[in-house]
Amino acid sequence: MSIPARQPIPRLDDNYSEEAASTRRAFLTAQTGASLPHTAHYSLSPDSLRNNTENFIGVVQMPVGVAGPVLINGEHAQGWFYVPMATTEGTLVASYSRGMRIVSESGGVKTTVVEEFMQRAPLFEFEDARAAKRFLAWVDTHEADIRQAAESTTAHGKLMHIQRWQIARMVYTRFNYTTGDAAGQNMCGKATHAAAQWMLKNSPETITHFALSGATETDKKHSHMNLMHSRGKRVIAEAVIQREVLQRLARTTPEIVFKQRQRSAIGNQLAGSAYGGPHSANGIAALFIATGQDEANVVESHAGFVFMDLTADGNLYFSVTLPSVICATRGGGTGLSTQAECLALLGCHGEGKAKKLAEIVGATVLAGDLSLLSAIMADEWVSSHDAYGRNR
Amino acid sequence: MSIPARQPIPRLDDNYSEEAASTRRAFLTAQTGASLPHTAHYSLSPDSLRNNTENFIGVVQMPVGVAGPVLINGEHAQGWFYVPMATTEGTLVASYSRGMRIVSESGGVKTTVVEEFMQRAPLFEFEDARAAKRFLAWVDTHEADIRQAAESTTAHGKLMHIQRWQIARMVYTRFNYTTGDAAGQNMCGKATHAAAQWMLKNSPETITHFALSGATETDKKHSHMNLMHSRGKRVIAEAVIQREVLQRLARTTPEIVFKQRQRSAIGNQLAGSAYGGPHSANGIAALFIATGQDEANVVESHAGFVFMDLTADGNLYFSVTLPSVICATRGGGTGLSTQAECLALLGCHGEGKAKKLAEIVGATVLAGDLSLLSAIMADEWVSSHDAYGRNR
Amino acid sequence: MSIPARQPIPRLDDNYSEEAASTRRAFLTAQTGASLPHTAHYSLSPDSLRNNTENFIGVVQMPVGVAGPVLINGEHAQGWFYVPMATTEGTLVASYSRGMRIVSESGGVKTTVVEEFMQRAPLFEFEDARAAKRFLAWVDTHEADIRQAAESTTAHGKLMHIQRWQIARMVYTRFNYTTGDAAGQNMCGKATHAAAQWMLKNSPETITHFALSGATETDKKHSHMNLMHSRGKRVIAEAVIQREVLQRLARTTPEIVFKQRQRSAIGNQLAGSAYGGPHSANGIAALFIATGQDEANVVESHAGFVFMDLTADGNLYFSVTLPSVICATRGGGTGLSTQAECLALLGCHGEGKAKKLAEIVGATVLAGDLSLLSAIMADEWVSSHDAYGRNR
Amino acid sequence: MSIPARQPIPRLDDNYSEEAASTRRAFLTAQTGASLPHTAHYSLSPDSLRNNTENFIGVVQMPVGVAGPVLINGEHAQGWFYVPMATTEGTLVASYSRGMRIVSESGGVKTTVVEEFMQRAPLFEFEDARAAKRFLAWVDTHEADIRQAAESTTAHGKLMHIQRWQIARMVYTRFNYTTGDAAGQNMCGKATHAAAQWMLKNSPETITHFALSGATETDKKHSHMNLMHSRGKRVIAEAVIQREVLQRLARTTPEIVFKQRQRSAIGNQLAGSAYGGPHSANGIAALFIATGQDEANVVESHAGFVFMDLTADGNLYFSVTLPSVICATRGGGTGLSTQAECLALLGCHGEGKAKKLAEIVGATVLAGDLSLLSAIMADEWVSSHDAYGRNR
Repeated sequence: MSIPARQPIPRLDDNYSEEAASTRRAFLTAQTGASLPHTAHYSLSPDSLRNNTENFIGVVQMPVGVAGPVLINGEHAQGWFYVPMATTEGTLVASYSRGMRIVSESGGVKTTVVEEFMQRAPLFEFEDARAAKRFLAWVDTHEADIRQAAESTTAHGKLMHIQRWQIARMVYTRFNYTTGDAAGQNMCGKATHAAAQWMLKNSPETITHFALSGATETDKKHSHMNLMHSRGKRVIAEAVIQREVLQRLARTTPEIVFKQRQRSAIGNQLAGSAYGGPHSANGIAALFIATGQDEANVVESHAGFVFMDLTADGNLYFSVTLPSVICATRGGGTGLSTQAECLALLGCHGEGKAKKLAEIVGATVLAGDLSLLSAIMADEWVSSHDAYGRNR
Repeated sequence: MSIPARQPIPRLDDNYSEEAASTRRAFLTAQTGASLPHTAHYSLSPDSLRNNTENFIGVVQMPVGVAGPVLINGEHAQGWFYVPMATTEGTLVASYSRGMRIVSESGGVKTTVVEEFMQRAPLFEFEDARAAKRFLAWVDTHEADIRQAAESTTAHGKLMHIQRWQIARMVYTRFNYTTGDAAGQNMCGKATHAAAQWMLKNSPETITHFALSGATETDKKHSHMNLMHSRGKRVIAEAVIQREVLQRLARTTPEIVFKQRQRSAIGNQLAGSAYGGPHSANGIAALFIATGQDEANVVESHAGFVFMDLTADGNLYFSVTLPSVICATRGGGTGLSTQAECLALLGCHGEGKAKKLAEIVGATVLAGDLSLLSAIMADEWVSSHDAYGRNR
Repeated sequence: MSIPARQPIPRLDDNYSEEAASTRRAFLTAQTGASLPHTAHYSLSPDSLRNNTENFIGVVQMPVGVAGPVLINGEHAQGWFYVPMATTEGTLVASYSRGMRIVSESGGVKTTVVEEFMQRAPLFEFEDARAAKRFLAWVDTHEADIRQAAESTTAHGKLMHIQRWQIARMVYTRFNYTTGDAAGQNMCGKATHAAAQWMLKNSPETITHFALSGATETDKKHSHMNLMHSRGKRVIAEAVIQREVLQRLARTTPEIVFKQRQRSAIGNQLAGSAYGGPHSANGIAALFIATGQDEANVVESHAGFVFMDLTADGNLYFSVTLPSVICATRGGGTGLSTQAECLALLGCHGEGKAKKLAEIVGATVLAGDLSLLSAIMADEWVSSHDAYGRNR
Repeated sequence: MSIPARQPIPRLDDNYSEEAASTRRAFLTAQTGASLPHTAHYSLSPDSLRNNTENFIGVVQMPVGVAGPVLINGEHAQGWFYVPMATTEGTLVASYSRGMRIVSESGGVKTTVVEEFMQRAPLFEFEDARAAKRFLAWVDTHEADIRQAAESTTAHGKLMHIQRWQIARMVYTRFNYTTGDAAGQNMCGKATHAAAQWMLKNSPETITHFALSGATETDKKHSHMNLMHSRGKRVIAEAVIQREVLQRLARTTPEIVFKQRQRSAIGNQLAGSAYGGPHSANGIAALFIATGQDEANVVESHAGFVFMDLTADGNLYFSVTLPSVICATRGGGTGLSTQAECLALLGCHGEGKAKKLAEIVGATVLAGDLSLLSAIMADEWVSSHDAYGRNR
C-alpha cells in the first residue's frame, strides 16, 4: 500500500492543560472524522493527571452501579458496605447484589488478609553454573547490605525477603517488599534497581548479563508463581451460607451447590484455570475501575482458590482465597476525582486503608461467585441475562 | 459486633432514570458520608444503560490518553491509527506511543486474525463411565440436531464444533460458536442452553446431573485451555524492527532484545506465566475500557506467546500471538456515548469491525512490549517511571 | 584436570552375542574395577535384544512381587487378576494388595477405555503469519492426501485427525493415530515423516523451516496437552467402595476419605500437580517394568484425575481417569522372556490385548490410591513403611 | 457375570524365602496357566528383599546397555564414566552414546548440584481463616521446637525450612529436609509425623482436621511446585558444544540446533510441558532402573529447563537444569545385587555418593537431548529408529 506520512499527535508546552486536550481532540477529529463531544465532557482537571496519563484527550464515562449492601466482618472492613462497580455488563450488579444479600442474611462475610508483598525480579547471569552458585552464597551473607541499598530509595517500602532460583548459569530472583497503602510496583522497581546496582558493583563474581526483570515478578500477568507466592495481598473471604436463605433467595440448596462445585473443580483442572470459581474477574475489574486501581492488575488479582464444605448442620461453608489482590488507597488513580469519591463510599480513601479495600474485594468476589453458581444450578442464568443484558 | 439493620439501595419505578440515580446518590451520601459530585457529572443518558448496569449512580471518569499513531498492515485494519487508552498509570501512553513509533518507522505491524470462537461448556453426568461413553457416541451421530437446536435461538451465532472430554462418568463439553461482531457470551449461553435442553430430552442415556457450565469454557478466567483453543479471536501481530530505528529511538539493539528474550522465556517457564512477553495486559485493559469492552475479559485476552528471531540482515522479527482476544464492536458497552466515540476514532464502530479492532489490539500489544523490553535493556525503565508516574 | 584418553566401549562383529556382552563386561571391570557377576546372570538371549538395546552387558534383576488378586469388570479385562509389580520400594506391593482386596470385596473395579491416540507433531514455518494461515486452509482441503502418505508406511497405524495451532508464522501440528496393540511412537514417527515429506513437496506456500517435532506431541514428558488430548489410552476405573469393607479393612470411612480428598484437591491446585490422587506413578511404573513397557512413558501415563463422591446409601464412589496410558502388548520389550511371562500372567500377551492391559493399569492405580489415602487417614502410613521399608 | 471366589496369594512363615517364591509361582501357574521359568531365573537372594518388595515371585530381567564414556567435570563426578542404562527401547543407548561422544569431544560436561531437599507436607485445618493465621504466627515462633521433634526420629535427616501457604482456613505446609545419601521419603515421613504430633499436641489453636499429607509435597507426581522448589537434587549440566564436533558427529550446526530450540520452546509453552527439552525421561528412567532408584520418581525427576545460547566464537552453550532429581546411593534398591554392581560401575555405591550420581544423571540427560535434537534436525530420527528399533 502507499502509506501517507505519519502525523504526530500534537504536544503543547503545558501538555496537561485543557488547551492541550482540546487541541488533540481537534487534531483527531481532523484525522479520523470522529467527533468527541462526550469524551470532552468531564469534571476532572487535566492538570491533575500528571502522574496518570499522557496525551490526555478526555474521559471515558464508565457507568457505575452500586451493589449491596454487604455485611463484612473483617479485620479492617467492618459493617455494611455499598460497593461501587464500574461495568458495562448488564446483570452484573444485580447478580453481585443478590449474592451480597444472601451472604449478609446468612451473617456476613468474614475477611482476612494473611500476607502481602510486591515484587521486582532482577536476573543475574554468570560465566557458568558454579559461579552462579557462588554468587548465591554471597547473597546469603549480604542480605543486610542489599536491603539497605533497596530501602534507601523509599520511605514506605520494606524489603522482606529475596527469593532466588538458579537455572543454568542464571540466577532469577524475586525481591519481596511491603509497600504500605500503595500498590508499589514503581516503588519496588526503584528500590530493586538501587539494590541491583549495589550488587552489580560489589559482586565478587563477574556478572555477564543483567536485567532488572527476569520475568519472575510476573507483573501484569497471571502466573502459577503468584498463586503460590502472593503478589499484592493474600485475601481470604469466608461465609457460612444458611440453607434457608439460599433456598429462599436463590432457589437452590447447599448440597446442590456443593455437588456442582466438585464437578467444576475437575473442569478447572482439565482446563488449567487460574481461578477455581466462576468469575472473580467480574467483581474485581468493576471494583478496580471504580476505585482507581490499575485495571491491568485484574489479571494477577483474579487468580485463586474456592473451597467449600457442607457443615454438620446443613449449611454451606463457602470460601474464596485470592493470593494476589493488588490494590491501593493512595497513589495511581486513587486520587482522581470520581475514583476518590468511590473510595470514599467505601471509607477507603487514603492512608491505612489498603487492607480494608482488599477485604472488600474478597467479600465482593465471594458474593458474586455464590450468586452465579446458584443461578447456574437453578437454571436462571440464561433467563436473568435475558432480562438484564439482552443485547449481547 | 452489634449489627445495624440492612438499608437496601433505593429502586424506583423507572430505575434507569436520572431521578433514580440522583435518589441513590443521596441515599449513599446519607449512609456513608461520601459526596459524589464528580460521579454525578456525565453526559450519557441513564436510560441508555438498560443493558449495561443496574443501580446506576453515575460514572467514573477514566482519563483517556491517545497513543500513536501506529501503522498497521492488517487484513482488516490498514493505515495509521490513533489508539485511545483509558488508564490511570502514568508512563503507559508514552511508552506505547514510543513503541508505536518504532514499529511504524520500521514499516508497520502486520496483523492477522487466524481463528475465532466463543464458548459455553455444559456438563453431563451419567450412571457410570460406560454410559458416558455411549452418550458420546450418540452425540457423534446427532451433531446436526444439536446444532439446529442451538442455532434456533440466534441470528448471529453459528455452532462450529463441540469439543468433549470424558472424566470419570462425566462428559465435559465446550460448544464453539462464531458470533459475528459481538463478544457473544450471552448468545452462546442461550444457544447452548437450548441445545442442552434438546440433549436432556433426547439422550438415550439417563443424565444423572447437568449444569450449563462445567467450567471448561473458562469464562472470565485465564486457562491453559484458552491458550490452546482460542476463546475470542486468535490474533497475530508481526513486525520486523529495523536495527537503525531501534538504536535511534530506544538505545538498544536487536541482539540485546533477543538475548534478554531468551532469558525471560526461562523466567516465564519457571513462574508458569500466562503470557510470554512483558505486559500485554496494560495495553489490552486500557484499550478495552476505552472502547466499551467487558473489562473482565482482560484476564482471558492477555494470555499468549511472544516469538522473536534475528533476521539475516540484522533486524529483529518480533511477534505477538494472542489466542483469546475477546472484543466486540456491537453490543455490551460499545454503544455508550464515550465508548462509541473511541471506537469511531479507530474506525471500528458497528457491524463488520470486530476483527479490525482485534488487529489493533494485537498491534498495540506488540508496540508496548517492544517499548518496555527496550526500556529494561537500556536501563531507562525506572527513570521513565520517575518522570511520568512519580507518585506510586 | 589432565584428562586421560577416551576408551571406547568394545563392539564386536556380532554385537548382540554373548561374546560381545562378556567382552564388554571384562572391559568395564578393567576400566572401573567393578565386577559384574550378578549382572551377567540371565536367561534371556543377547540375540533377542536387537530391537531393544545396544552395547548389552547383562541384566538388572528387578524383583517382582505379585499384588492382588483384583476383581475387574472391564470391557476387555474381566475376572480376577494377579498383578506383577517390579519394584524395589518396600510396602508397595502390600499396599496395592490391600487396596485390591478392598475394591474386590466391594464388588470390583469397572474399567473403560474411552479413547486412544499416539502422536507425532511436526512444525512448519512460513514467511509470515498470513502464509501460515493460507497453509492451514490448504491442509483443510488436503487431509485425504496427507493421510494416504502417512498410512502408506504402516499396516497398523491409522491417521485419525490432525490438530493444528498457529503461533506467529509457525504452524504446530499434532498427528493423531491409532496404532493397534503397539505403543506406536516409532510407527507414528515414520508415518508422519512420510506425510510431512508429501506436504513439504506439495505445499503451495514456501516452508521456510521444518522439524519433524515441534514438541507438541510431548513425547516422554508430562504436559497439560496430554491431560486434555489423550496420548496412549484414556482409561477410566471406577469402584463403589462399601462402607463396611472400608471400615473393616482400612479402619476409615467414606466420609473421612471424601473429606480429605476435598483438601488434597486444593493442595494439588496449589502445587500444580499432574495427577489428582496420591501416587499413580508407583503402580504404573511397577507394572510397566514388569510387562516390558517403555518405562519412560510413566511420565505421560501418571497424569490424570481422581473424582469421588459419597453415594446416597453411604458408600464411596471412587474413580481414576488416566488420559495418557501408553502401553503395548506387542513390540518393544513385551517379547522379552520375563516380560512376556508377566504379560502371560495377566492374559495380556500378544495381539488384541492392549486395551485389556490398559484396563488392568487403571484398576491397579485405583486400588493403590485408595489404600494410600486410607492409610494416611488412619494414621498408618508411617508405621506400615516402618514395617516393610525400614531402610530408607 | 458370575464371579468365582477370590483365591488369595499364598504366604508362608518365611515369606522372603525361595520356598515362598516357588510356592507362589506354582500357585500363579495353576491360576493363570502362565509358566514362569525366566522369572524364576535370578541370582539375588529372596532374603535380601525384606525392605524392597512383598509377595516376591522372581525377577524381571531388564537388559542393560552401557552408554559412553562421557567426560564429566563435576564437583563430585570427575573423569570418564560408562553409564549403565536399563532399557528395552532400541536406539536409546546408541543415541545417548553418540551424545556423550559429542559432549566429550567438545570438552566434557560441567555439572553442579545447587540445592537439595526432600519433603513431607502436612495439612492443618482450623475453625476459620483467622485461627489459621494465628497458627501460622505461632509456628513462626516455634520452629526450633518443631525441628527438634522432627529430628528426634532420624540420624541423617535435617529439617531445613518449613514452607507454608494459607488457603481458606487450611494451612498447607511443606517440610524441607536434607537426607544425606538416601532419597529420604520415608525418613521425612517419619520425622514430619513426629513434628506434626508435637504441633497437634501444643498448638494454641484448635486443629479441626489434620492429614500427614495435604498433597503439596507432590510425592510421585510432577508438579509446578517441584519445578520451583527442588525435590531431591537440583542438578545443572552445562557444555559448550564445539561447532566442528557437532558438524562431524551429528551433521548439524550450532545455529540449526539453536534455531529449532526457539521453536520447540514455544511448542512446549503451548503444550504446557513439564520439561523444556526433548526426552529427559528416557535417560533418567534407564539410569534409575539400572542403579536401584525408585523408578516412580522418574515423574518428578524428568521436569526441568533447557537453556541454550550461541557463543561469540560460533559454538553452542547447552544446559540442562533438573530441579527434582531424586536419587540415592544407599537404601531402597541400591543394595540389591545387580543394582549395586551398576552403581559400582559409576563409582557411586554407598555413603557420600548421592551428589555424584545426580551429576551423572544431569550429564546423561544433556547428552541424550543433544543427540536427539541433532537427529531431528539432520533428518536422521526415523532412519536411526528403523536401524535399531524396527519392531515398534
